Amino acid sequence: MKDKINVIKVGGAVVEDATSLNSLLQQFAGMPGNKVLVHGGGRSATRIAASLGIESHMVGGRRITDAQMLQVVTMVYAGLVNKNIVAGLQARNVNALGLTGADMDVLRSHKRPLKAVTMDDGTEQLVDFGFVGDVDKANGEMLCKLIAEGVVPVMTPLTHDGAGNLLNTNADTIASKVACALAPYFDVTLTFCFEKKGVLRNADDDDSVIPVITEQDFAAHRASGVISGGMIPKLENAFDAIHQGVQRVVITRSDNINGEGGTVIKEF
Amino acid sequence: MKDKINVIKVGGAVVEDATSLNSLLQQFAGMPGNKVLVHGGGRSATRIAASLGIESHMVGGRRITDAQMLQVVTMVYAGLVNKNIVAGLQARNVNALGLTGADMDVLRSHKRPLKAVTMDDGTEQLVDFGFVGDVDKANGEMLCKLIAEGVVPVMTPLTHDGAGNLLNTNADTIASKVACALAPYFDVTLTFCFEKKGVLRNADDDDSVIPVITEQDFAAHRASGVISGGMIPKLENAFDAIHQGVQRVVITRSDNINGEGGTVIKEF
Repeated sequence: MKDKINVIKVGGAVVEDATSLNSLLQQFAGMPGNKVLVHGGGRSATRIAASLGIESHMVGGRRITDAQMLQVVTMVYAGLVNKNIVAGLQARNVNALGLTGADMDVLRSHKRPLKAVTMDDGTEQLVDFGFVGDVDKANGEMLCKLIAEGVVPVMTPLTHDGAGNLLNTNADTIASKVACALAPYFDVTLTFCFEKKGVLRNADDDDSVIPVITEQDFAAHRASGVISGGMIPKLENAFDAIHQGVQRVVITRSDNINGEGGTVIKEF
Repeated sequence: MKDKINVIKVGGAVVEDATSLNSLLQQFAGMPGNKVLVHGGGRSATRIAASLGIESHMVGGRRITDAQMLQVVTMVYAGLVNKNIVAGLQARNVNALGLTGADMDVLRSHKRPLKAVTMDDGTEQLVDFGFVGDVDKANGEMLCKLIAEGVVPVMTPLTHDGAGNLLNTNADTIASKVACALAPYFDVTLTFCFEKKGVLRNADDDDSVIPVITEQDFAAHRASGVISGGMIPKLENAFDAIHQGVQRVVITRSDNINGEGGTVIKEF
Protein backbone atom coordinates (compact mmCIF):
# COMPACT_ATOMS: atom_id res chain seq x y z
CA MET A 1 0.00 0.00 0.00
CA LYS A 2 1.29 3.44 -0.87
CA ASP A 3 2.16 5.98 1.79
CA LYS A 4 -0.30 8.89 2.06
CA ILE A 5 0.43 12.51 1.16
CA ASN A 6 -1.63 15.69 1.38
CA VAL A 7 -1.25 18.42 -1.23
CA ILE A 8 -2.87 21.57 0.14
CA LYS A 9 -3.50 24.62 -2.03
CA VAL A 10 -4.31 27.92 -0.35
CA GLY A 11 -5.21 31.16 -2.09
CA GLY A 12 -3.51 34.50 -1.82
CA ALA A 13 -5.96 36.06 0.63
CA VAL A 14 -5.12 33.52 3.35
CA VAL A 15 -1.37 33.92 3.20
CA GLU A 16 -1.45 37.69 2.88
CA ASP A 17 -3.17 38.41 6.18
CA ALA A 18 -1.01 37.86 9.28
CA THR A 19 -3.81 36.34 11.39
CA SER A 20 -5.13 33.91 8.79
CA LEU A 21 -1.57 33.01 7.73
CA ASN A 22 -0.69 32.22 11.32
CA SER A 23 -3.74 30.02 11.73
CA LEU A 24 -3.02 28.25 8.43
CA LEU A 25 0.60 27.56 9.39
CA GLN A 26 -0.53 26.21 12.75
CA GLN A 27 -3.06 23.88 11.11
CA PHE A 28 -0.67 22.80 8.37
CA ALA A 29 2.13 22.13 10.85
CA GLY A 30 -0.27 19.98 12.86
CA MET A 31 -1.16 17.74 9.91
CA PRO A 32 0.57 14.38 10.37
CA GLY A 33 2.48 12.66 7.59
CA ASN A 34 3.81 13.75 4.21
CA LYS A 35 2.57 17.06 2.84
CA VAL A 36 3.06 19.77 0.24
CA LEU A 37 1.77 23.35 0.42
CA VAL A 38 0.96 25.37 -2.73
CA HIS A 39 0.15 29.06 -2.28
CA GLY A 40 -1.08 32.04 -4.27
CA GLY A 41 -0.30 35.70 -3.69
CA GLY A 42 -2.14 37.76 -6.28
CA ARG A 43 -3.42 40.48 -3.96
CA SER A 44 0.07 41.30 -2.65
CA ALA A 45 1.37 41.37 -6.21
CA THR A 46 -1.31 43.87 -7.19
CA ARG A 47 -0.58 46.01 -4.11
CA ILE A 48 3.21 46.02 -4.55
CA ALA A 49 2.85 46.65 -8.29
CA ALA A 50 0.65 49.66 -7.51
CA SER A 51 3.27 50.98 -5.04
CA LEU A 52 5.84 50.67 -7.83
CA GLY A 53 3.54 52.57 -10.20
CA ILE A 54 2.86 49.47 -12.29
CA GLU A 55 -0.73 48.96 -13.35
CA SER A 56 -2.30 45.49 -13.08
CA HIS A 57 -4.13 44.52 -16.26
CA MET A 58 -6.78 41.85 -15.97
CA VAL A 59 -8.78 40.20 -18.78
CA GLY A 60 -11.73 38.01 -17.77
CA GLY A 61 -10.47 37.98 -14.16
CA ARG A 62 -7.01 36.84 -15.17
CA ARG A 63 -3.81 38.82 -14.85
CA ILE A 64 -1.84 39.93 -17.91
CA THR A 65 1.83 39.40 -17.01
CA ASP A 66 4.00 41.85 -18.91
CA ALA A 67 7.77 42.04 -18.30
CA GLN A 68 7.40 44.46 -15.39
CA MET A 69 4.63 42.44 -13.77
CA LEU A 70 6.72 39.28 -14.11
CA GLN A 71 9.40 41.00 -12.01
CA VAL A 72 6.78 41.94 -9.42
CA VAL A 73 5.26 38.45 -9.15
CA THR A 74 8.74 36.93 -8.98
CA MET A 75 9.56 39.21 -6.04
CA VAL A 76 6.24 38.79 -4.28
CA TYR A 77 5.49 35.09 -4.85
CA ALA A 78 8.98 33.57 -4.66
CA GLY A 79 10.36 36.13 -2.19
CA LEU A 80 7.97 37.84 0.18
CA VAL A 81 5.12 35.34 0.40
CA ASN A 82 7.02 32.08 -0.05
CA LYS A 83 9.92 32.78 2.28
CA ASN A 84 7.72 34.06 5.09
CA ILE A 85 5.72 30.84 4.89
CA VAL A 86 8.92 28.80 4.90
CA ALA A 87 10.33 30.64 7.93
CA GLY A 88 6.95 30.35 9.70
CA LEU A 89 6.83 26.60 9.11
CA GLN A 90 10.43 26.12 10.22
CA ALA A 91 9.47 27.86 13.47
CA ARG A 92 6.81 25.14 13.85
CA ASN A 93 9.28 22.31 13.24
CA VAL A 94 8.22 21.69 9.65
CA ASN A 95 11.26 21.25 7.42
CA ALA A 96 9.88 23.50 4.66
CA LEU A 97 11.62 24.20 1.35
CA GLY A 98 10.30 26.98 -0.89
CA LEU A 99 10.23 26.11 -4.58
CA THR A 100 9.42 27.75 -7.88
CA GLY A 101 9.12 25.41 -10.83
CA ALA A 102 12.65 26.43 -11.86
CA ASP A 103 14.17 25.09 -8.65
CA MET A 104 15.46 21.59 -9.39
CA ASP A 105 13.39 21.83 -12.57
CA VAL A 106 10.29 20.68 -10.70
CA LEU A 107 7.76 22.36 -13.02
CA ARG A 108 8.47 22.98 -16.68
CA SER A 109 6.02 25.03 -18.75
CA HIS A 110 5.69 26.89 -22.03
CA LYS A 111 4.57 30.45 -22.59
CA ARG A 112 0.86 30.50 -23.25
CA PRO A 113 0.05 31.21 -26.91
CA LEU A 114 -2.58 33.81 -27.81
CA LYS A 115 -5.85 32.56 -26.41
CA ALA A 116 -9.46 33.27 -27.32
CA VAL A 117 -11.27 34.76 -24.33
CA THR A 118 -14.96 35.60 -24.05
CA MET A 119 -15.28 39.22 -22.92
CA ASP A 120 -17.95 40.64 -20.63
CA ASP A 121 -19.86 41.90 -23.67
CA GLY A 122 -19.99 38.36 -25.10
CA THR A 123 -17.50 38.96 -27.92
CA GLU A 124 -14.42 36.79 -28.31
CA GLN A 125 -10.95 38.29 -28.34
CA LEU A 126 -7.49 36.81 -28.85
CA VAL A 127 -5.58 37.71 -25.67
CA ASP A 128 -1.81 37.72 -25.11
CA PHE A 129 -1.45 36.85 -21.41
CA GLY A 130 2.26 37.67 -21.56
CA PHE A 131 4.69 35.75 -19.37
CA VAL A 132 2.21 33.12 -18.29
CA GLY A 133 3.12 29.44 -18.30
CA ASP A 134 1.02 26.42 -19.15
CA VAL A 135 2.58 23.45 -17.35
CA ASP A 136 4.10 20.65 -19.46
CA LYS A 137 5.54 18.43 -16.75
CA ALA A 138 6.07 18.15 -13.03
CA ASN A 139 9.08 16.26 -11.69
CA GLY A 140 7.50 13.84 -9.24
CA GLU A 141 10.71 11.86 -8.79
CA MET A 142 12.69 14.85 -7.48
CA LEU A 143 9.84 15.89 -5.18
CA CYS A 144 9.71 12.30 -3.85
CA LYS A 145 13.40 12.34 -2.99
CA LEU A 146 12.92 15.54 -0.98
CA ILE A 147 9.82 14.18 0.76
CA ALA A 148 11.71 10.98 1.63
CA GLU A 149 14.21 13.22 3.48
CA GLY A 150 11.37 14.72 5.54
CA VAL A 151 11.29 17.92 3.48
CA VAL A 152 7.95 19.70 2.98
CA PRO A 153 7.85 21.49 -0.38
CA VAL A 154 6.18 24.93 -0.34
CA MET A 155 5.39 25.78 -3.93
CA THR A 156 4.97 29.25 -5.33
CA PRO A 157 3.01 29.92 -8.54
CA LEU A 158 5.97 30.37 -10.89
CA THR A 159 7.31 27.88 -13.41
CA HIS A 160 10.06 28.06 -16.04
CA ASP A 161 10.40 27.25 -19.70
CA GLY A 162 13.86 25.69 -19.57
CA ALA A 163 15.25 28.55 -21.66
CA GLY A 164 15.88 30.86 -18.71
CA ASN A 165 12.43 32.43 -18.43
CA LEU A 166 10.25 32.34 -15.36
CA LEU A 167 6.52 32.20 -16.10
CA ASN A 168 3.56 33.18 -13.93
CA THR A 169 1.38 30.10 -13.43
CA ASN A 170 -2.00 29.50 -11.84
CA ALA A 171 -1.58 28.07 -8.34
CA ASP A 172 -4.56 25.67 -8.69
CA THR A 173 -2.92 24.23 -11.80
CA ILE A 174 0.38 23.83 -9.98
CA ALA A 175 -1.35 22.02 -7.12
CA SER A 176 -3.11 19.71 -9.56
CA LYS A 177 0.05 18.96 -11.58
CA VAL A 178 2.09 18.30 -8.44
CA ALA A 179 -0.61 16.01 -7.04
CA CYS A 180 -0.66 14.06 -10.33
CA ALA A 181 3.13 13.81 -10.44
CA LEU A 182 3.11 12.36 -6.92
CA ALA A 183 0.29 9.89 -7.66
CA PRO A 184 2.59 7.08 -8.92
CA TYR A 185 4.44 7.17 -5.57
CA PHE A 186 1.77 8.11 -3.02
CA ASP A 187 -1.91 7.84 -2.15
CA VAL A 188 -2.60 11.54 -2.79
CA THR A 189 -5.30 13.77 -1.31
CA LEU A 190 -5.46 17.15 -3.04
CA THR A 191 -7.27 19.90 -1.13
CA PHE A 192 -8.17 23.23 -2.71
CA CYS A 193 -8.84 25.82 -0.02
CA PHE A 194 -10.73 29.03 -0.68
CA GLU A 195 -13.04 31.43 1.15
CA LYS A 196 -16.14 29.21 1.17
CA LYS A 197 -16.84 25.99 3.07
CA GLY A 198 -17.09 24.10 -0.23
CA VAL A 199 -18.84 24.32 -3.58
CA LEU A 200 -22.16 25.99 -2.78
CA ARG A 201 -25.54 25.10 -4.24
CA ASN A 202 -26.62 28.67 -3.53
CA ALA A 203 -23.92 31.35 -3.59
CA ASP A 204 -25.81 33.38 -1.00
CA ASP A 205 -26.05 30.53 1.49
CA ASP A 206 -22.70 29.60 3.03
CA ASP A 207 -24.18 26.44 4.44
CA SER A 208 -25.42 25.07 1.12
CA VAL A 209 -22.24 23.03 0.53
CA ILE A 210 -22.63 20.28 -2.05
CA PRO A 211 -20.98 17.30 -0.28
CA VAL A 212 -20.03 15.29 -3.39
CA ILE A 213 -19.67 16.28 -7.05
CA THR A 214 -19.19 13.61 -9.72
CA GLU A 215 -18.34 14.38 -13.31
CA GLN A 216 -21.98 13.88 -14.22
CA ASP A 217 -23.03 16.30 -11.43
CA PHE A 218 -20.50 18.84 -12.68
CA ALA A 219 -22.00 18.78 -16.18
CA ALA A 220 -25.49 19.20 -14.72
CA HIS A 221 -24.47 22.01 -12.32
CA ARG A 222 -22.71 23.87 -15.15
CA ALA A 223 -25.75 23.56 -17.36
CA SER A 224 -28.07 24.84 -14.60
CA GLY A 225 -25.67 27.66 -13.67
CA VAL A 226 -25.12 26.41 -10.07
CA ILE A 227 -21.41 26.20 -10.93
CA SER A 228 -20.04 29.14 -12.88
CA GLY A 229 -17.18 31.64 -13.15
CA GLY A 230 -13.90 30.88 -11.37
CA MET A 231 -15.35 27.66 -9.94
CA ILE A 232 -15.29 26.06 -13.41
CA PRO A 233 -11.49 26.00 -13.90
CA LYS A 234 -11.10 24.93 -10.23
CA LEU A 235 -13.32 21.91 -10.83
CA GLU A 236 -11.64 21.19 -14.15
CA ASN A 237 -8.28 21.06 -12.32
CA ALA A 238 -9.89 18.79 -9.74
CA PHE A 239 -11.19 16.33 -12.34
CA ASP A 240 -7.85 16.41 -14.21
CA ALA A 241 -6.22 15.28 -10.99
CA ILE A 242 -8.75 12.48 -10.41
CA HIS A 243 -8.23 11.23 -14.00
CA GLN A 244 -4.49 11.13 -13.43
CA GLY A 245 -4.48 8.96 -10.36
CA VAL A 246 -5.04 11.38 -7.48
CA GLN A 247 -7.08 9.42 -4.94
CA ARG A 248 -9.16 12.19 -3.42
CA VAL A 249 -9.85 15.84 -4.23
CA VAL A 250 -11.59 18.13 -1.74
CA ILE A 251 -12.68 21.76 -2.05
CA THR A 252 -13.01 23.46 1.32
CA ARG A 253 -12.38 26.57 3.40
CA SER A 254 -8.83 27.62 4.34
CA ASP A 255 -9.50 27.32 8.05
CA ASN A 256 -10.42 23.69 7.53
CA ILE A 257 -7.54 22.17 5.58
CA ASN A 258 -8.40 18.70 6.84
CA GLY A 259 -11.32 18.97 4.49
CA GLU A 260 -14.19 17.70 6.63
CA GLY A 261 -17.44 19.28 5.61
CA GLY A 262 -16.10 20.43 2.25
CA THR A 263 -17.00 19.21 -1.23
CA VAL A 264 -15.47 15.89 -2.32
CA ILE A 265 -14.83 15.51 -6.06
CA LYS A 266 -15.43 12.01 -7.44
CA GLU A 267 -15.20 10.57 -10.93
CA PHE A 268 -18.44 8.56 -10.57
CA MET B 1 40.39 11.38 -0.70
CA LYS B 2 37.44 13.73 -0.47
CA ASP B 3 35.55 14.85 -3.56
CA LYS B 4 36.15 18.48 -4.56
CA ILE B 5 33.61 21.28 -4.38
CA ASN B 6 33.70 24.95 -5.39
CA VAL B 7 31.81 27.55 -3.37
CA ILE B 8 31.64 30.72 -5.47
CA LYS B 9 30.47 34.02 -4.02
CA VAL B 10 29.55 36.83 -6.39
CA GLY B 11 28.53 40.34 -5.43
CA GLY B 12 25.37 42.18 -6.30
CA ALA B 13 26.81 44.25 -9.15
CA VAL B 14 27.58 41.15 -11.22
CA VAL B 15 24.15 39.56 -10.93
CA GLU B 16 22.25 42.81 -11.43
CA ASP B 17 23.53 43.60 -14.90
CA ALA B 18 22.16 41.38 -17.68
CA THR B 19 25.46 41.13 -19.60
CA SER B 20 27.69 40.33 -16.63
CA LEU B 21 25.07 37.96 -15.20
CA ASN B 22 24.95 36.09 -18.48
CA SER B 23 28.71 35.79 -18.61
CA LEU B 24 28.82 34.63 -14.97
CA LEU B 25 26.14 31.97 -15.55
CA GLN B 26 28.00 30.74 -18.61
CA GLN B 27 31.28 30.45 -16.67
CA PHE B 28 29.63 28.89 -13.63
CA ALA B 29 27.72 26.37 -15.75
CA GLY B 30 31.01 25.41 -17.41
CA MET B 31 32.78 24.61 -14.11
CA PRO B 32 33.05 20.85 -13.76
CA GLY B 33 32.15 19.00 -10.56
CA ASN B 34 30.26 19.93 -7.41
CA LYS B 35 29.50 23.59 -6.84
CA VAL B 36 27.53 26.13 -4.84
CA LEU B 37 26.77 29.74 -5.83
CA VAL B 38 26.24 32.48 -3.24
CA HIS B 39 25.05 35.86 -4.49
CA GLY B 40 24.43 39.40 -3.24
CA GLY B 41 21.90 41.91 -4.53
CA GLY B 42 22.22 45.11 -2.53
CA ARG B 43 22.06 47.54 -5.44
CA SER B 44 18.74 46.15 -6.68
CA ALA B 45 17.37 46.27 -3.14
CA THR B 46 18.31 49.95 -2.87
CA ARG B 47 16.76 50.68 -6.28
CA ILE B 48 13.48 48.82 -5.61
CA ALA B 49 13.25 50.32 -2.12
CA ALA B 50 13.61 53.79 -3.65
CA SER B 51 10.84 53.01 -6.18
CA LEU B 52 8.64 52.01 -3.24
CA GLY B 53 9.48 55.27 -1.46
CA ILE B 54 11.55 53.48 1.20
CA GLU B 55 14.81 55.15 2.13
CA SER B 56 17.96 53.02 2.50
CA HIS B 57 19.83 53.83 5.71
CA MET B 58 23.48 52.91 5.83
CA VAL B 59 25.89 53.16 8.78
CA GLY B 60 29.59 52.66 8.08
CA GLY B 61 28.76 51.26 4.62
CA ARG B 62 26.33 48.72 6.06
CA ARG B 63 22.61 48.63 5.53
CA ILE B 64 20.17 49.15 8.39
CA THR B 65 17.38 46.63 7.83
CA ASP B 66 14.14 47.93 9.31
CA ALA B 67 10.86 46.01 8.89
CA GLN B 68 10.08 47.60 5.51
CA MET B 69 13.59 47.04 4.21
CA LEU B 70 13.43 43.39 5.32
CA GLN B 71 10.39 42.99 3.06
CA VAL B 72 12.29 44.59 0.19
CA VAL B 73 15.41 42.44 0.57
CA THR B 74 13.24 39.33 0.92
CA MET B 75 11.54 40.19 -2.37
CA VAL B 76 14.69 41.20 -4.18
CA TYR B 77 17.22 38.65 -2.90
CA ALA B 78 15.04 35.54 -2.58
CA GLY B 79 12.68 36.43 -5.43
CA LEU B 80 13.97 38.58 -8.25
CA VAL B 81 17.72 37.95 -8.11
CA ASN B 82 17.76 34.35 -6.88
CA LYS B 83 15.06 32.94 -9.14
CA ASN B 84 16.44 34.58 -12.27
CA ILE B 85 19.81 32.99 -11.53
CA VAL B 86 18.12 29.61 -10.93
CA ALA B 87 16.15 29.79 -14.19
CA GLY B 88 19.29 30.94 -16.05
CA LEU B 89 21.30 28.01 -14.70
CA GLN B 90 18.55 25.52 -15.47
CA ALA B 91 18.65 26.78 -19.07
CA ARG B 92 22.36 25.83 -19.02
CA ASN B 93 21.67 22.32 -17.70
CA VAL B 94 22.70 23.11 -14.12
CA ASN B 95 20.21 21.63 -11.67
CA ALA B 96 20.05 24.78 -9.53
CA LEU B 97 18.01 25.15 -6.35
CA GLY B 98 17.56 28.60 -4.81
CA LEU B 99 17.84 28.68 -1.03
CA THR B 100 17.50 31.14 1.80
CA GLY B 101 18.78 29.97 5.16
CA ALA B 102 15.19 29.20 6.16
CA ASP B 103 14.77 26.63 3.39
CA MET B 104 15.44 23.22 4.91
CA ASP B 105 16.90 25.15 7.84
CA VAL B 106 20.25 25.41 6.08
CA LEU B 107 21.40 28.61 7.85
CA ARG B 108 20.25 29.51 11.32
CA SER B 109 21.15 32.90 12.79
CA HIS B 110 20.26 35.30 15.60
CA LYS B 111 19.33 38.95 15.32
CA ARG B 112 22.44 41.04 15.76
CA PRO B 113 22.52 42.82 19.13
CA LEU B 114 23.37 46.53 19.31
CA LYS B 115 26.89 46.88 18.01
CA ALA B 116 29.56 49.53 18.53
CA VAL B 117 30.50 51.09 15.18
CA THR B 118 33.21 53.65 14.51
CA MET B 119 31.67 56.57 12.64
CA ASP B 120 33.34 58.66 9.92
CA ASP B 121 34.14 61.31 12.51
CA GLY B 122 36.00 58.77 14.65
CA THR B 123 33.41 58.57 17.42
CA GLU B 124 31.90 55.24 18.47
CA GLN B 125 28.18 54.67 18.38
CA LEU B 126 25.96 51.78 19.39
CA VAL B 127 24.05 50.87 16.22
CA ASP B 128 20.88 48.80 15.88
CA PHE B 129 21.24 47.14 12.48
CA GLY B 130 17.65 45.92 12.66
CA PHE B 131 16.68 42.61 11.07
CA VAL B 132 20.23 41.49 10.42
CA GLY B 133 21.35 37.97 11.25
CA ASP B 134 24.67 36.73 12.58
CA VAL B 135 24.99 33.10 11.54
CA ASP B 136 25.02 30.41 14.26
CA LYS B 137 25.11 27.28 12.15
CA ALA B 138 25.03 25.97 8.61
CA ASN B 139 23.52 22.57 7.89
CA GLY B 140 26.28 20.85 5.91
CA GLU B 141 24.57 17.46 6.06
CA MET B 142 21.42 18.64 4.27
CA LEU B 143 23.46 20.52 1.66
CA CYS B 144 25.50 17.34 1.09
CA LYS B 145 22.39 15.28 0.46
CA LEU B 146 21.27 17.76 -2.20
CA ILE B 147 24.70 17.88 -3.79
CA ALA B 148 24.80 14.07 -3.88
CA GLU B 149 21.62 14.25 -6.00
CA GLY B 150 23.38 16.54 -8.49
CA VAL B 151 21.66 19.65 -7.15
CA VAL B 152 23.56 22.97 -7.23
CA PRO B 153 22.52 25.21 -4.30
CA VAL B 154 22.15 28.91 -5.17
CA MET B 155 22.19 30.77 -1.88
CA THR B 156 20.67 34.16 -1.27
CA PRO B 157 21.80 36.42 1.62
CA LEU B 158 18.90 35.73 3.99
CA THR B 159 18.89 33.49 7.04
CA HIS B 160 16.29 32.77 9.73
CA ASP B 161 16.20 32.68 13.51
CA GLY B 162 14.07 29.55 13.91
CA ALA B 163 11.28 31.64 15.41
CA GLY B 164 9.72 32.63 12.09
CA ASN B 165 11.86 35.67 11.30
CA LEU B 166 13.95 36.07 8.19
CA LEU B 167 17.15 38.05 8.72
CA ASN B 168 19.31 39.95 6.23
CA THR B 169 22.79 38.41 6.25
CA ASN B 170 26.09 39.35 4.64
CA ALA B 171 26.68 37.20 1.54
CA ASP B 172 30.43 36.82 2.20
CA THR B 173 29.61 35.42 5.63
CA ILE B 174 27.11 33.01 4.13
CA ALA B 175 29.69 31.81 1.61
CA SER B 176 32.24 31.31 4.37
CA LYS B 177 29.82 29.46 6.69
CA VAL B 178 28.60 27.21 3.88
CA ALA B 179 32.18 26.41 2.83
CA CYS B 180 33.04 25.51 6.45
CA ALA B 181 29.93 23.35 6.84
CA LEU B 182 30.92 21.42 3.68
CA ALA B 183 34.56 20.99 4.75
CA PRO B 184 33.98 17.73 6.71
CA TYR B 185 32.56 16.17 3.53
CA PHE B 186 34.49 17.79 0.68
CA ASP B 187 37.82 19.30 -0.32
CA VAL B 188 36.46 22.86 -0.51
CA THR B 189 37.68 25.81 -2.58
CA LEU B 190 35.96 29.06 -1.59
CA THR B 191 36.18 31.87 -4.14
CA PHE B 192 35.12 35.41 -3.34
CA CYS B 193 34.52 37.37 -6.54
CA PHE B 194 34.43 41.14 -6.66
CA GLU B 195 35.25 43.95 -9.10
CA LYS B 196 39.06 43.73 -8.84
CA LYS B 197 41.45 41.03 -10.06
CA GLY B 198 42.42 40.26 -6.46
CA VAL B 199 43.59 42.05 -3.32
CA LEU B 200 45.62 44.99 -4.65
CA ARG B 201 48.87 46.32 -3.22
CA ASN B 202 47.97 49.70 -4.72
CA ALA B 203 44.26 50.53 -5.04
CA ASP B 204 44.98 52.67 -8.12
CA ASP B 205 46.83 49.93 -9.98
CA ASP B 206 44.55 47.09 -11.10
CA ASP B 207 47.54 44.94 -11.90
CA SER B 208 49.11 45.13 -8.45
CA VAL B 209 47.41 41.90 -7.27
CA ILE B 210 49.03 40.36 -4.19
CA PRO B 211 49.27 36.67 -5.24
CA VAL B 212 49.31 35.16 -1.72
CA ILE B 213 48.27 36.53 1.68
CA THR B 214 49.10 34.62 4.86
CA GLU B 215 47.77 35.58 8.27
CA GLN B 216 51.07 37.24 9.04
CA ASP B 217 50.87 39.21 5.75
CA PHE B 218 47.31 40.24 6.60
CA ALA B 219 48.41 41.70 9.94
CA ALA B 220 51.26 43.58 8.25
CA HIS B 221 49.06 44.87 5.37
CA ARG B 222 46.44 46.08 7.84
CA ALA B 223 49.08 47.87 9.89
CA SER B 224 50.54 49.54 6.80
CA GLY B 225 47.08 50.45 5.44
CA VAL B 226 47.49 48.41 2.23
CA ILE B 227 44.38 46.46 3.32
CA SER B 228 41.56 48.59 4.69
CA GLY B 229 37.81 49.22 4.60
CA GLY B 230 35.52 46.53 3.20
CA MET B 231 38.51 44.33 2.39
CA ILE B 232 39.09 43.66 6.10
CA PRO B 233 35.84 41.73 6.82
CA LYS B 234 36.27 39.91 3.48
CA LEU B 235 39.71 38.68 4.57
CA GLU B 236 38.45 37.89 8.06
CA ASN B 237 35.78 35.68 6.48
CA ALA B 238 38.49 34.09 4.35
CA PHE B 239 40.70 33.26 7.34
CA ASP B 240 37.70 31.99 9.32
CA ALA B 241 37.10 29.53 6.50
CA ILE B 242 40.74 28.40 6.39
CA HIS B 243 40.73 27.85 10.16
CA GLN B 244 37.64 25.69 9.86
CA GLY B 245 38.96 23.26 7.31
CA VAL B 246 38.33 24.96 3.96
CA GLN B 247 41.24 23.88 1.76
CA ARG B 248 41.66 26.92 -0.42
CA VAL B 249 40.30 30.49 -0.42
CA VAL B 250 40.73 32.77 -3.43
CA ILE B 251 39.77 36.41 -3.96
CA THR B 252 39.37 37.29 -7.61
CA ARG B 253 37.37 39.12 -10.26
CA SER B 254 33.85 37.96 -11.16
CA ASP B 255 34.80 37.30 -14.78
CA ASN B 256 37.42 34.86 -13.57
CA ILE B 257 35.64 32.53 -11.19
CA ASN B 258 38.24 29.82 -11.74
CA GLY B 259 40.47 32.04 -9.66
CA GLU B 260 43.71 32.03 -11.67
CA GLY B 261 45.59 35.26 -11.19
CA GLY B 262 43.64 36.20 -8.05
CA THR B 263 44.82 36.38 -4.46
CA VAL B 264 45.19 33.06 -2.61
CA ILE B 265 44.60 33.18 1.15
CA LYS B 266 46.84 30.88 3.18
CA GLU B 267 47.20 30.27 6.90
CA PHE B 268 51.03 30.24 6.78
